[in-house]
Amino acid sequence: MAQKVTPMTQDFSKWYNDVVKMAELAEHAPVKGCMVIRPYGYALWENMRDKLDSMIKATGHVNAYFPMLIPESFLQKEAEHVEGFAPELAIVTHGGGKKLEENLVLRPTSETIIYHMFAKWVMSYRDLPILMNQWANVFRWEMRPRLFLRTLEFLWQEGHTAHRNEEEAEAETQTALEMYREFAEDTLAIPVITGEKTETERFAGAVRTYCIEAMMRDGKALQAGTSHMLGQNFAKAFDLQFQDQDGENKYAYNTSWGVSTRLVGAVIMVHGDDDGLILPPKIAPHQIVIVPIYRSDEERALVMEVADKVRAALPDVRIHLDDRDQYKPGWKFAEWEQKGVPLRMEIGPKDVAKGQVVLTQRHDREKEFLPIDDAIAQIPTKLDDLQKALLERARAFRDERTHKIDSYDEFKKRVGDGGFYLAHWDGTKETEAKVKADTKATIRCIPFDTDGEEGVCMVSGKPSKQRVVFARAY
Amino acid sequence: MAQKVTPMTQDFSKWYNDVVKMAELAEHAPVKGCMVIRPYGYALWENMRDKLDSMIKATGHVNAYFPMLIPESFLQKEAEHVEGFAPELAIVTHGGGKKLEENLVLRPTSETIIYHMFAKWVMSYRDLPILMNQWANVFRWEMRPRLFLRTLEFLWQEGHTAHRNEEEAEAETQTALEMYREFAEDTLAIPVITGEKTETERFAGAVRTYCIEAMMRDGKALQAGTSHMLGQNFAKAFDLQFQDQDGENKYAYNTSWGVSTRLVGAVIMVHGDDDGLILPPKIAPHQIVIVPIYRSDEERALVMEVADKVRAALPDVRIHLDDRDQYKPGWKFAEWEQKGVPLRMEIGPKDVAKGQVVLTQRHDREKEFLPIDDAIAQIPTKLDDLQKALLERARAFRDERTHKIDSYDEFKKRVGDGGFYLAHWDGTKETEAKVKADTKATIRCIPFDTDGEEGVCMVSGKPSKQRVVFARAY
Repeated sequence: MAQKVTPMTQDFSKWYNDVVKMAELAEHAPVKGCMVIRPYGYALWENMRDKLDSMIKATGHVNAYFPMLIPESFLQKEAEHVEGFAPELAIVTHGGGKKLEENLVLRPTSETIIYHMFAKWVMSYRDLPILMNQWANVFRWEMRPRLFLRTLEFLWQEGHTAHRNEEEAEAETQTALEMYREFAEDTLAIPVITGEKTETERFAGAVRTYCIEAMMRDGKALQAGTSHMLGQNFAKAFDLQFQDQDGENKYAYNTSWGVSTRLVGAVIMVHGDDDGLILPPKIAPHQIVIVPIYRSDEERALVMEVADKVRAALPDVRIHLDDRDQYKPGWKFAEWEQKGVPLRMEIGPKDVAKGQVVLTQRHDREKEFLPIDDAIAQIPTKLDDLQKALLERARAFRDERTHKIDSYDEFKKRVGDGGFYLAHWDGTKETEAKVKADTKATIRCIPFDTDGEEGVCMVSGKPSKQRVVFARAY
Repeated sequence: MAQKVTPMTQDFSKWYNDVVKMAELAEHAPVKGCMVIRPYGYALWENMRDKLDSMIKATGHVNAYFPMLIPESFLQKEAEHVEGFAPELAIVTHGGGKKLEENLVLRPTSETIIYHMFAKWVMSYRDLPILMNQWANVFRWEMRPRLFLRTLEFLWQEGHTAHRNEEEAEAETQTALEMYREFAEDTLAIPVITGEKTETERFAGAVRTYCIEAMMRDGKALQAGTSHMLGQNFAKAFDLQFQDQDGENKYAYNTSWGVSTRLVGAVIMVHGDDDGLILPPKIAPHQIVIVPIYRSDEERALVMEVADKVRAALPDVRIHLDDRDQYKPGWKFAEWEQKGVPLRMEIGPKDVAKGQVVLTQRHDREKEFLPIDDAIAQIPTKLDDLQKALLERARAFRDERTHKIDSYDEFKKRVGDGGFYLAHWDGTKETEAKVKADTKATIRCIPFDTDGEEGVCMVSGKPSKQRVVFARAY
């Protein structure tokens, strides 16, 4: 912990790697592109997963588990799907000491295997909708891995549903997207823009892809979650039919939606600062760290008594008492700052004498001396306030860096500084490709929230119905 | 649900497959040996996992996640380990469209990758012990798959620890084993025998393997969990050294321990009967199913009012209200019996008139008419009692089928009937192999709980320190 992280203004990418390493969130594994999620990083992911899992269940979905190994031929049944995923596949060719008759792929996503099974289970309209979810590891061969952001193996949840008609499927994609927005904002304190992806950025096999997009502290965008209306594409490929109320056999409509361990990367890059990680209280493995200060056994006993009292009084708060003797308080302060613990409580012999404790907020260093009982009484509210403060700070940061822009020359000059650029676009792939080639920026989404202002494309001058969000992205 | 399961006395194996299928726990996947865990089966697993996870954490362990892909060369570093697992490996030879320079194996277990990482993290004795756990999918190529019992991919937890010396490592294996015993008995209502495995049955790479063994309703044994003292075998293979307090560099001692989705199979085969599954309340996805009985909308309203009252009064009980209109009550009764719901509550218009409900226990069909408020008041206790009753019933079943035996001729005649046979054994591999060849029975464990009675081996007549448990096993 003696080591400091590289300042983010100096080198954002190095800052990110330093934070991941020094906060002991994750490490590179022996197989290039794979990661080891260390206990502190995994506890963070568990808190995120548990909250999202309860939201998934509360919206009527049930969990299941489908196998990781998928016959190669399954991927080929949906033409766009295989085209999108084939270059990223990991392939098992041998098992049990023998060459396999058919190669197996490690799931890059599970549409194929899941809709194959749905087809066995669905007979009649009464069997619909099917609203399922699974938590699983998935595999996409990554050439430029970044811990949490792009890894060969990652953990995620994938929702998969089947419906009688397009309206129900469309409503489901919106339910999932709204759940993700709420989760990002209320739980991760990450403000997001909701909208639709352009055709270029659509999921391989989807009719429409919706997304939540967030802004990182370097002004770049990160796609934080997607929800896909798959139409009947997979139902036709896997013969997922049902007898409708009118007696006719029809293909079902599917949706799929997912978020992954990538969100850990988002949390790091939305809230962190030059001293390391900053965690929203709702997902922090430790919401409070108590650092006792003492020079003698006698002082230790006095201080620990207060620490124990605080812990006993707040059983629902995740409090970590750092009672390691081999480290000095200042060293501990620095470690827990790097690890982003929202609130630090110092208790020293002088504090005990005065009946007080010292509270320091991680995100703004605000320090307070409070009578012990007041501190205990105020902590639950304080944690709520900290959660809100992080969201508001991130929202202000993003809004300051979100610009309406009408001149492509100006866009080209400014987009490299980071930020979201709201610009008119003519709706063509060609313009989108030109902007990407010129500037590395992509259309993050066609936002739902629009002022209705029509205009002309900043590149081609052709008519445009609404502004879209351009940015460089992860 | 019109279909009935094959009676277990007629064909136990068919009964098992029928229960798994009809209770909608799992199905075979397109890739032979893989399974799809359906929502009802997965909810059961989730309840098991959540309870065990809290026990793992309460004993000081932290969760982490290690990659599924392991370089083939890692397996080869521990000679016995690779010998044990090589025949069962699934191998990735291609990724991202290219042939790999080194083949990767899908983890059959994670000792190699985990101790490789531990070696990076451990410098000094102060870094020990490391007490970690992961929940993951693992892969062992199975030639004779059975759903839950032996599948190519299964879900499990694997604890991995590192210690300064053998005593601490030994104590850790016992902590894990005792945790498994408590979990099996208190949560799954499965009585188990704890003991040590013989050398033949030891984990590949372990110094000692401990286990919990349970008896199924056909009298066969099932290994329900194992805990391994790995000594310094893996530490030496992966250079896991630490500087001890005395300044010397020493190899750490490791332990590993795991239980898997196999436990779902154990629950089915320990508690089930000819009508299907019977679930212990602590892990049942639905602890109570309410079946409303009505013929008119008016009756429906009256009955539902009571159902709502019961549910509102018992927020901590997992109650499922089966309000499907398309099925008759008798059909629903049969379905929930097959699915093993511990307690059924019927509410009909006559019951409402009398202010009562009808409660039926799944495991013994005991039926009771109770005033509504009494039912509400008694349900939590009733569920506790049902949990205990299942454990006691399983214990009585096992004890009746556990026999001391001294004559090998008699053993050979009886062992095919199922049951545990406590017999003296001379401690040699040769005798063990002969018994297996003659009878298909193996030594399930050298039990900790022994009366200290010495004797002579039932096969060789050589001296024996204690009786061991022989049985045919899954």
